[in-house]
Amino acid sequence: MSRSTRAHTRSPTSSSTGAPLVPGFQAAGIPIGIKPNRASDLALIVSSPPARAAGVFTKNSVKSAPVLLSRARIRSGLCQAVIINSGNANACTGDRGFRDAMAMCRLTSRALGIDEGTVLVSSTGVIGVPLPMDKIRKGIPEVVRRLAATGIPEVAEAIRTTDRFTKLAWKRFPVDGRTVTVAGMAKGAGMICPQMATMLAYFLTDANAPVAVLRDLLRTGVANSFNRINVDGDSSTNDTVLLLANGLAGNPPLRQGTPSFEAFRSVLHSLMDELARMIVRDGEGSTKTVDILVRGAPTDRDARRIAYHLANSTLVKTSFYGEDMNWGRIVVAVGCSCPRTEQDKIDVSYDDVKVVKGGMSAGRLREEQARRILKLPSFRVTVDLHLGKGHYLVVTSDLSHEYVTLNASYRS
Amino acid sequence: MSRSTRAHTRSPTSSSTGAPLVPGFQAAGIPIGIKPNRASDLALIVSSPPARAAGVFTKNSVKSAPVLLSRARIRSGLCQAVIINSGNANACTGDRGFRDAMAMCRLTSRALGIDEGTVLVSSTGVIGVPLPMDKIRKGIPEVVRRLAATGIPEVAEAIRTTDRFTKLAWKRFPVDGRTVTVAGMAKGAGMICPQMATMLAYFLTDANAPVAVLRDLLRTGVANSFNRINVDGDSSTNDTVLLLANGLAGNPPLRQGTPSFEAFRSVLHSLMDELARMIVRDGEGSTKTVDILVRGAPTDRDARRIAYHLANSTLVKTSFYGEDMNWGRIVVAVGCSCPRTEQDKIDVSYDDVKVVKGGMSAGRLREEQARRILKLPSFRVTVDLHLGKGHYLVVTSDLSHEYVTLNASYRS
Repeated sequence: MSRSTRAHTRSPTSSSTGAPLVPGFQAAGIPIGIKPNRASDLALIVSSPPARAAGVFTKNSVKSAPVLLSRARIRSGLCQAVIINSGNANACTGDRGFRDAMAMCRLTSRALGIDEGTVLVSSTGVIGVPLPMDKIRKGIPEVVRRLAATGIPEVAEAIRTTDRFTKLAWKRFPVDGRTVTVAGMAKGAGMICPQMATMLAYFLTDANAPVAVLRDLLRTGVANSFNRINVDGDSSTNDTVLLLANGLAGNPPLRQGTPSFEAFRSVLHSLMDELARMIVRDGEGSTKTVDILVRGAPTDRDARRIAYHLANSTLVKTSFYGEDMNWGRIVVAVGCSCPRTEQDKIDVSYDDVKVVKGGMSAGRLREEQARRILKLPSFRVTVDLHLGKGHYLVVTSDLSHEYVTLNASYRS
Repeated sequence: MSRSTRAHTRSPTSSSTGAPLVPGFQAAGIPIGIKPNRASDLALIVSSPPARAAGVFTKNSVKSAPVLLSRARIRSGLCQAVIINSGNANACTGDRGFRDAMAMCRLTSRALGIDEGTVLVSSTGVIGVPLPMDKIRKGIPEVVRRLAATGIPEVAEAIRTTDRFTKLAWKRFPVDGRTVTVAGMAKGAGMICPQMATMLAYFLTDANAPVAVLRDLLRTGVANSFNRINVDGDSSTNDTVLLLANGLAGNPPLRQGTPSFEAFRSVLHSLMDELARMIVRDGEGSTKTVDILVRGAPTDRDARRIAYHLANSTLVKTSFYGEDMNWGRIVVAVGCSCPRTEQDKIDVSYDDVKVVKGGMSAGRLREEQARRILKLPSFRVTVDLHLGKGHYLVVTSDLSHEYVTLNASYRS
């Protein structure tokens, strides 16, 4: 992931100007009263012609009904519509939950006059409460009526739960002489952790690409973006990232290793990176985004374990919040998570200022310089173990009073 | 560990009345200005005759100088004195730190006129700052002058850092017709996690027991007490638990498997349990003590991983703080930490109220009952996976606004 400290909504540095229109896609979002506050909570994405599709889903062994259903259906590689609700996760809801997820797809397919098997479904929100199917049954024909090419931002809006801002990014660029558009939208905030999160993300494109290529692009992209972000160490029952490509751009099918593939990959993955960072920036109660880079570890696996331990440590996260130059907590967390650590080899830097050299303070002057970096909204902590070539980067947030406030009373 | 919800300081239910005097032990604690607030910060324990000794130390691969030194010295099985400072951990201080730890022992041995090799040393406090040796050099003769049989509570006081209350417990009981006393004192609060913590604990007894017996009693006791407590998931560079036995009670040497051994074991381990629970109750910003019991896991190892994941989850801990009946977060954390989880087999109870049965809500009525349990200062969460016989218990605290306040600005 590249570093970025972008503004809160869509970013002019990566998104094309104008509206996020993707040829062949229509979308809409409306409030149907699942959320208590009358905010938008039902969204629909439709592709015509049917899109080739790839998806990745939560690794949590507790999976919501919509994840189980969509994961099974996407094996066909085909998708015409995605129906999404927020405010209720339809997780831990047993057989009834599965029937409700099926019903959401069936109602959508009937309202659209398309094959039920090509409709996918996502839900996000409170766990363990049955979906209010009466509201959804009434809502689906309504959201279908509202479908429009300009409706993509409505989806980004309707999928929010505790998100403070909508997360939307898109780009229009040439591929083999044709204009291709990719639009991405996501929601995140709480339960953000490796192996996905209470996180939904949808990438829509008119590029022409075989399903195998889409699957590979999605898998590698997610590994380097959504799976490297961390807010609080738990990953959810509902995480879903979908990539839909309807081929309307008319480019020759993308093939791995070609310049066209590389151009498309680069744009798609930078949009994924951008949306993943938006999720961290919007982490519940987050006031800072911190890149944690571990290098010089015996193996990448060691580096990954250390990086996540640092990213999950409440002691480390509160020190970021307090803008507190407390490198001792970082060294402790490293030693805690890697038995092969040699304490007199550890270096720790905040951005380019090395505050720990050989396991000891690099001096008061350096600590003063680092204190200024800690006041930035975004910075990088680098831990070098000087033991090998293993490295790993995680992007995380701090732990604030607001996090505690938000999470002490989310459900009741 | 047994459940207990005891008052904040020494507990009449386990401690004998009167002062914690242990024949043959003298102790003292004084302020020497390492801590900024003139609180007591230098402590000394002396045994005459020399005590047989066992110790367990942090598993963090970053270890403080006093831990490295004391761990090496205790192999002899003999200890005459322990010198302890708070306010500075003497960790990440390089060669100088090691020389300073040696000097603390040497100064103590000279002031007492005893063999330097039988003096152990502990430090706790800020990491990465050299010890103020001028203050310690002046302080050691002073603390020696203050030594008294009644000084054990002064040690419990002097070892505090962010602790809100002193942790001291003792018991006098018969062993083979002799009266034996065991006194324990501890400090904890932050960085409390498995494999020890920023935690110091000392157990003093006049029992007569071979070193091998002491080592076994300490290892098994720590495994079931201090290693099962958790405040914030990081374990420190300085953790130390020592058991000193000077034999003055004159009982026949304790031997495993005898009733006398069992009587002694039972008292020692219950004091360890009591002090460990005091540490959790005093966890930084802690408002609740929660026992997390995982059972029905495929293996004990699985149960342990799940229990610690729950105990470390900021989402779970903030829900305890908010007295929020959010069992979804518990189920999510279980699924996150154990890939073998079968979601439709999970049961979750708060004390005796089952709120999740077969992965789903057991009904609104049960949730209302559990909400009342959440308001207690102490309760138990039981997760049953119904997969096997693996089980594990962890005792943890909640995550409060005060935790964030304390930890956002501990060092600077």
